[in-house]
Amino acid sequence: MTDETRDPWITISAKRVYENPWIVVEHREVLTPTRTQGVYGIVHFRKYAVGVVPIDDEGYVHLVGQWRPPLNRYSWEIPEGGAEPGEDTIVTARREMAEETGLEAANVVEILRMDLSNSITDEIAFVYLATGLKPGKPTPDDTEELAHKRLPFGEALNQVLVGQITDSMSVAGLLRAYHMAKTGQVDPTLAKAMLAQSSV
Amino acid sequence: MTDETRDPWITISAKRVYENPWIVVEHREVLTPTRTQGVYGIVHFRKYAVGVVPIDDEGYVHLVGQWRPPLNRYSWEIPEGGAEPGEDTIVTARREMAEETGLEAANVVEILRMDLSNSITDEIAFVYLATGLKPGKPTPDDTEELAHKRLPFGEALNQVLVGQITDSMSVAGLLRAYHMAKTGQVDPTLAKAMLAQSSV
Repeated sequence: MTDETRDPWITISAKRVYENPWIVVEHREVLTPTRTQGVYGIVHFRKYAVGVVPIDDEGYVHLVGQWRPPLNRYSWEIPEGGAEPGEDTIVTARREMAEETGLEAANVVEILRMDLSNSITDEIAFVYLATGLKPGKPTPDDTEELAHKRLPFGEALNQVLVGQITDSMSVAGLLRAYHMAKTGQVDPTLAKAMLAQSSV
Repeated sequence: MTDETRDPWITISAKRVYENPWIVVEHREVLTPTRTQGVYGIVHFRKYAVGVVPIDDEGYVHLVGQWRPPLNRYSWEIPEGGAEPGEDTIVTARREMAEETGLEAANVVEILRMDLSNSITDEIAFVYLATGLKPGKPTPDDTEELAHKRLPFGEALNQVLVGQITDSMSVAGLLRAYHMAKTGQVDPTLAKAMLAQSSV
């Protein structure tokens, strides 16, 4: 039996090689679990990632579009942002959704937790579902240039399947929302609206 | 209308601040889309991430367990690994599954593409579904210490929902497999076996 509480890696030395307000990069000289020599670069994230799947009473999902410099391309996604230090992630979810789309929600529930890239980073994501939506005016922060659109849930899910929506929190969040609609975890009328619009 | 082909960021300067065989970290001085001054740290990944959801004829999914140093804890996940330069990701999927579980598969199909953490990294993940499984002997590489288990698909999916399986490729891959079973995208007998074992 494997002892799941025992760290099989040995760290010989560790140093901080880069940091900015979002990440800290650490370089380690290590012995691997099989005791070969190696190096390990770890990217620590200073903030939790938070995403929210906003689905309105007509079964439409709201997405925001923005340029993602690491990918060097535009990306349509669910509203997302980083939790400020000490901020409850459900507060982050409501704040980011309001800033990016203007929407306020009667109901916000956590639907997933994920480690986004656990071979290199410690980034943890919290994904929420927001329903009972009320429109409002977006107030993007002073670095953002965002677009906003709504589309039928089934069409958004189809964009996941064909690789047009590729952001991991959006992909997992939309698939989880489908699962919830199929298993009675959302209001039946809303589930019907979500599932009616396509062959999903 | 937003022009989705135009990069709204301006890079003033860029330098490589860290690299190892897996990642390159780049620091940029930038002007944001709203023309405020800022910095941007980007983590370039040298390899594609590849994951594979192996589901056997009895509707059981195969998972591997290992210690993840960035999280500083143990994690149960679908078989995963990095594509070697020039390697087709479907070849990576078969190779990693064989190394980590011994399994060979009659059928391997791509089911998802994801950008795992697109605010900071350019890491792209390819997720596959493997069916028609035949057992064999694992051959882990010389740095790995892995455990292997199989459990009913419904139980694995439930572990996603309660936050016991949190690896992003595993979370999205299992939810996508559920979607496929519900929409006639896997063999009906297999779909029945997958969905029979729990209330999913």
